[in-house]
Amino acid sequence: MPSWNDGAAKQSIIRFVDDVTGEDAPTFVPPADRIAVFDNDGTLWSEKPVYFQFLFAIERVRALVLQHPQWQSQPLFKAAIDGDFDALGIAGAKGLTTLTMATHSGMTTDAFDRIVEDWITTAQHPRFHRPFTDLAFKPMLELLRYLRDNGFTTYIASAGGIEFLRVWADRIYGVPPQYVIGSSSITQFQMRDGEPVLVREDRIEFIDDEAGKPVGIYKFIGRRPIFAFGNSDGDLQMLQWTAAGGGPRFLGLLHHTDGEREWAYDRNTTVGRLDKALDEARARAWTLVDMKQDWKTIFAFGPK
Amino acid sequence: MPSWNDGAAKQSIIRFVDDVTGEDAPTFVPPADRIAVFDNDGTLWSEKPVYFQFLFAIERVRALVLQHPQWQSQPLFKAAIDGDFDALGIAGAKGLTTLTMATHSGMTTDAFDRIVEDWITTAQHPRFHRPFTDLAFKPMLELLRYLRDNGFTTYIASAGGIEFLRVWADRIYGVPPQYVIGSSSITQFQMRDGEPVLVREDRIEFIDDEAGKPVGIYKFIGRRPIFAFGNSDGDLQMLQWTAAGGGPRFLGLLHHTDGEREWAYDRNTTVGRLDKALDEARARAWTLVDMKQDWKTIFAFGPK
Repeated sequence: MPSWNDGAAKQSIIRFVDDVTGEDAPTFVPPADRIAVFDNDGTLWSEKPVYFQFLFAIERVRALVLQHPQWQSQPLFKAAIDGDFDALGIAGAKGLTTLTMATHSGMTTDAFDRIVEDWITTAQHPRFHRPFTDLAFKPMLELLRYLRDNGFTTYIASAGGIEFLRVWADRIYGVPPQYVIGSSSITQFQMRDGEPVLVREDRIEFIDDEAGKPVGIYKFIGRRPIFAFGNSDGDLQMLQWTAAGGGPRFLGLLHHTDGEREWAYDRNTTVGRLDKALDEARARAWTLVDMKQDWKTIFAFGPK
Repeated sequence: MPSWNDGAAKQSIIRFVDDVTGEDAPTFVPPADRIAVFDNDGTLWSEKPVYFQFLFAIERVRALVLQHPQWQSQPLFKAAIDGDFDALGIAGAKGLTTLTMATHSGMTTDAFDRIVEDWITTAQHPRFHRPFTDLAFKPMLELLRYLRDNGFTTYIASAGGIEFLRVWADRIYGVPPQYVIGSSSITQFQMRDGEPVLVREDRIEFIDDEAGKPVGIYKFIGRRPIFAFGNSDGDLQMLQWTAAGGGPRFLGLLHHTDGEREWAYDRNTTVGRLDKALDEARARAWTLVDMKQDWKTIFAFGPK
């Protein structure tokens, strides 16, 4: 993991992996149980000025607002049209799912995938002027690979949309669709012109955030992870539930402390608030990764 | 696949696997896309006199009815208490989920797993007087292994309960929990005595049957399978949706034709009706496996 400075955080990761892979160790865990779950926004890539999927939703709302004039009088949609990031941040995963499904209901899952693919390959981040996928954290990509090289299966458990992530998570993170867990709207099987298709509805199915994260993880994996990594209060229950299993456990939290190379925030922010989870991490000696201290490099495109 | 007679069915399987694994063939499919989905009841193990999970539910309803006297006046519960298999068969996957969640709501997922584990290792099939897991079809176990040996990932997509199956599917079928898809009730994250647990509620979350099967498969896997195998009309939409993808496809249906060694039924039965799907399989030249003709051995415990 060359992008990590040698410090307590890196050491705690390596020690944990050594503990569970050493075949003669009492802490050995067989590969089938080496399940690692990662939050996405703010953990694997940046989340400022607002979850990147909100910027996707903003573009879609603006593109479709002429066909939906009633959106102008709905606060959530108005916030998207106006680019009001504070209001969107407060709306959180549920607001994001609502916007995504409103702008993409009635279409097939295949059609939605194409819209996401088009956006993710062309849209640019407002500060860095690069594709959003360039804002994946290099140290975390190295960590994902390090874990997989040691027999782990790496999952993503995101409050963002499951179908949004699945389009590109394999390419960027090496996490194929079946290992992506996220928030979702309901889909229905239909016959259209004699073709069986899956159609997106405008009803929320599941919000994979806060207490929803352990529920989603259990539903998709059917096992309790031994390794969980997040960065905000939305990840607290995932970390608690992972910690409560028997045997060796790794609990990690990324602390955004680098306002120069990325962003610095914790308790006072609407997007990615880290407050209760920060207290609990300190009280229980979970691994706190200090972005500024622990990471040599943040993005693969190098220091600004 | 030593339990298969050399015939059209076995040949069509082998030809398909050769087609998608031959690296120079235009029909080559990379391993990541070699997704195979199997129905469970009637496809991987028997389903008579009624889905085996109904026998589990019957035992649970009878064990708990004194605490729930109102069940005596509810038709579905009454059918379970009376062992009315026709009525239970008609109630189908939804009835099964209702019984399972009514008898196991309020308990943690861990507690439910222990009850299933206890039942599956001790209960016996009424005709064969053996553990239910002995009624897994030997030719299908060989097929699962053959596919995995050829780089496939084998999934189960069952109308039965996801948590019920996950307890033993790995041991019997070699299909670990994360590759089991099924019907489910809602679970909630709770703190009990300071311990984070997942608790089963008495609300249906998802019925993985008929039009629900492609929905469940897409939700869990995020890809369209290239291989699907079922045995009843409940599998029709799964087969149709799998067939509609581009590139080589294998669609299989098991036809229960052996009343002596197993059971013989198709259009006229409440449990495992094969009617529309039989017509469509013949019209579209899907692979129909004739249990009596195609299988040398049905169960590992040998000819009756």
